[in-house]
Amino acid sequence: MRVLILGGDGYLGWPTALRFSARGHEVSVVDNYVRRHWVAGVGSDSLTPILDLEARIAAWAETPGAAEIRSFVGSVEDGDFLEGVVAETRPEAVIHYGQQASAPYSMASREQAVETQQANVIGNLNLLFAIRDHVPECHLVKLGTMGEYGQPNIDIEEGYIRIEHKGRSDTLPFPKLPASLYHCSKVHDSTNIHFACRTWGLRATDLNQGVVYGIETEETAGEERLITRFDYDEIFGTVLNRFCVQAVIGHPLTVYGSGGQTRGFLNIRDTLNCVDLAVSNPAAPGEFRVFNQFTEQFSVIDLAHLVKHSAEHLGYSVEIQHCDNPRVEKEEHYYNAQHTKLLDLGLEPTLLGEELVESMIHAIERHKGRVIEAHIDPRTRWNPAKSPAGRA
Amino acid sequence: MRVLILGGDGYLGWPTALRFSARGHEVSVVDNYVRRHWVAGVGSDSLTPILDLEARIAAWAETPGAAEIRSFVGSVEDGDFLEGVVAETRPEAVIHYGQQASAPYSMASREQAVETQQANVIGNLNLLFAIRDHVPECHLVKLGTMGEYGQPNIDIEEGYIRIEHKGRSDTLPFPKLPASLYHCSKVHDSTNIHFACRTWGLRATDLNQGVVYGIETEETAGEERLITRFDYDEIFGTVLNRFCVQAVIGHPLTVYGSGGQTRGFLNIRDTLNCVDLAVSNPAAPGEFRVFNQFTEQFSVIDLAHLVKHSAEHLGYSVEIQHCDNPRVEKEEHYYNAQHTKLLDLGLEPTLLGEELVESMIHAIERHKGRVIEAHIDPRTRWNPAKSPAGRA
Repeated sequence: MRVLILGGDGYLGWPTALRFSARGHEVSVVDNYVRRHWVAGVGSDSLTPILDLEARIAAWAETPGAAEIRSFVGSVEDGDFLEGVVAETRPEAVIHYGQQASAPYSMASREQAVETQQANVIGNLNLLFAIRDHVPECHLVKLGTMGEYGQPNIDIEEGYIRIEHKGRSDTLPFPKLPASLYHCSKVHDSTNIHFACRTWGLRATDLNQGVVYGIETEETAGEERLITRFDYDEIFGTVLNRFCVQAVIGHPLTVYGSGGQTRGFLNIRDTLNCVDLAVSNPAAPGEFRVFNQFTEQFSVIDLAHLVKHSAEHLGYSVEIQHCDNPRVEKEEHYYNAQHTKLLDLGLEPTLLGEELVESMIHAIERHKGRVIEAHIDPRTRWNPAKSPAGRA
Repeated sequence: MRVLILGGDGYLGWPTALRFSARGHEVSVVDNYVRRHWVAGVGSDSLTPILDLEARIAAWAETPGAAEIRSFVGSVEDGDFLEGVVAETRPEAVIHYGQQASAPYSMASREQAVETQQANVIGNLNLLFAIRDHVPECHLVKLGTMGEYGQPNIDIEEGYIRIEHKGRSDTLPFPKLPASLYHCSKVHDSTNIHFACRTWGLRATDLNQGVVYGIETEETAGEERLITRFDYDEIFGTVLNRFCVQAVIGHPLTVYGSGGQTRGFLNIRDTLNCVDLAVSNPAAPGEFRVFNQFTEQFSVIDLAHLVKHSAEHLGYSVEIQHCDNPRVEKEEHYYNAQHTKLLDLGLEPTLLGEELVESMIHAIERHKGRVIEAHIDPRTRWNPAKSPAGRA
């Protein structure tokens, strides 16, 4: 199958490209390295020493049985460029990771909020037109986020909810309470994609992904040149990855507020399995299908204790530090999100436990000399007016 | 009160500026004349011969009792410019009309879709930051549209709906099925504003406005130099305004499909009354308040018959023409939208009837020599693949 991956240089995009290439698909990737620039811009760097995209692709080409990966360097915000790539590669599936994906980054300033919404909304809109005009049968697999839903006081369903109201009923998009301006941009994308499916008959799957953790996948493990990026700073690091790095370098685990915030999580290996399942079982023409893509729910404080225990087994001494919560969110709340659709397609979850955390810690230890500690503590506040130090 | 009006050169923005000035408020307006350029770009022009903004403001200054109106020429997409205006004028209320407001314009091409969403979403985002950082107590009155809701099979509530689900309940944003990429942009704005209210404690009222008709308001009637713009082409003309012009020039009334599409409508005079009521009764800090701003529901075919009868009373001969529907929408559907909140604040609706249509026809007759007939028939298709002539 011809598969086009946008954001193919990223944490998830790169191992996804390898996965599809390893399974014999014709893979093309698009990236403009902006994630590398964003991370450098906040003073941080990937924990793992990643090669540049061309060198990684060359290293992959040496792998027995690997199919060639084509790369296109450019921005999804450039509509002519993206249209040209789609017209040339004629994908049967597009997997769209090519977005600014950090909530704190989007909250730091007006400029970064605008940059985030413009990059994400316009890039995605360009993609919808390119698919409509060149490959209308193509299946769009779009990475969304569970953070689009926020913290409603009812069960979170997968994309839609049946509403009975004043004697009538309809199945409508699940109401959203996005958790940051980044998460708002993902809600905007969902709205636009749903519209394109209703109006142009496109087919799409929106993967409302939970928080991803993990370093290695089947294709990247064992070959250092194929490793994917791994972020641990306050802006780009996700919580479990950040905690594991903190444990290794002897930094307290930074729990925001009480840590009662509950979210869905999944292993990076399951991200690849979920995307594979979505691509292998495409949405119908005109269908905007939504999967909640996570395997387990945890509270932040539960994860902190898990990392503490696991690291202590390995001889580390770990402290848990409750920081003043820089975000505006409920710390004690109801949370129960459905996630059966990918299981129904055959997903076999990789569950989180001490053994898995210990293997992450071992992988992190190999690169601990690269850690930049200055950007780990939370500084980006959702509401600067409520900062302990006053308005920024 | 200090009132800042974005889009103050437009169909609704200009008479709103006069209304608030006439009531003694300190009015500032922002515009960059892009609506004039957009309309010229599709080959059309305002039916009414409007002066440029500075000349209109000078004409207004000659009106007895009129307060000075200040103007700022620039784009809301320019965040530094907009921030400067907000910092300088320190508004107590901002009324935001400064957007690309045509659904067909947004559907004509990728470039116009991107232009629409970028102008609307980024402009509104810039405004939210400017208010947060300079006048956090200011009340944002944002023009939304009833077209954000689309055509659900349940009653449309005002912004929120109480949902009972699996034994729990919550009041959540009403699910949206926007009718075009322009309408999608307004949903994006609502999502961003709601987030800003939840997170930063801003206060906002989202006016989900129905289709506006009419030419004159209390302040513009009787002084030709103060008249507002009036569009009637297929891109920028709203349906009742378009029908009235068509009747006057002997063009068949262009009903899209069966004409069973039902929508909420209101007179331009009521738009001003509604905005006035919203400003006079501000939302609370942190509140994102939503009003459905229309006074009556009609189907398109009902309006066509009303215009036909009214024009025939005046001696015109009028034909109704059912065109192949260029839009993707239901032509026969359930539609019942709540709109009590503005009535509760004291709105006294100007109801539509033959007398009102006849007065619109008389106002149009004064300018009938200016009509450009070439851009009245519908050509902008929601789905080019389904065009009778094939893909555009």
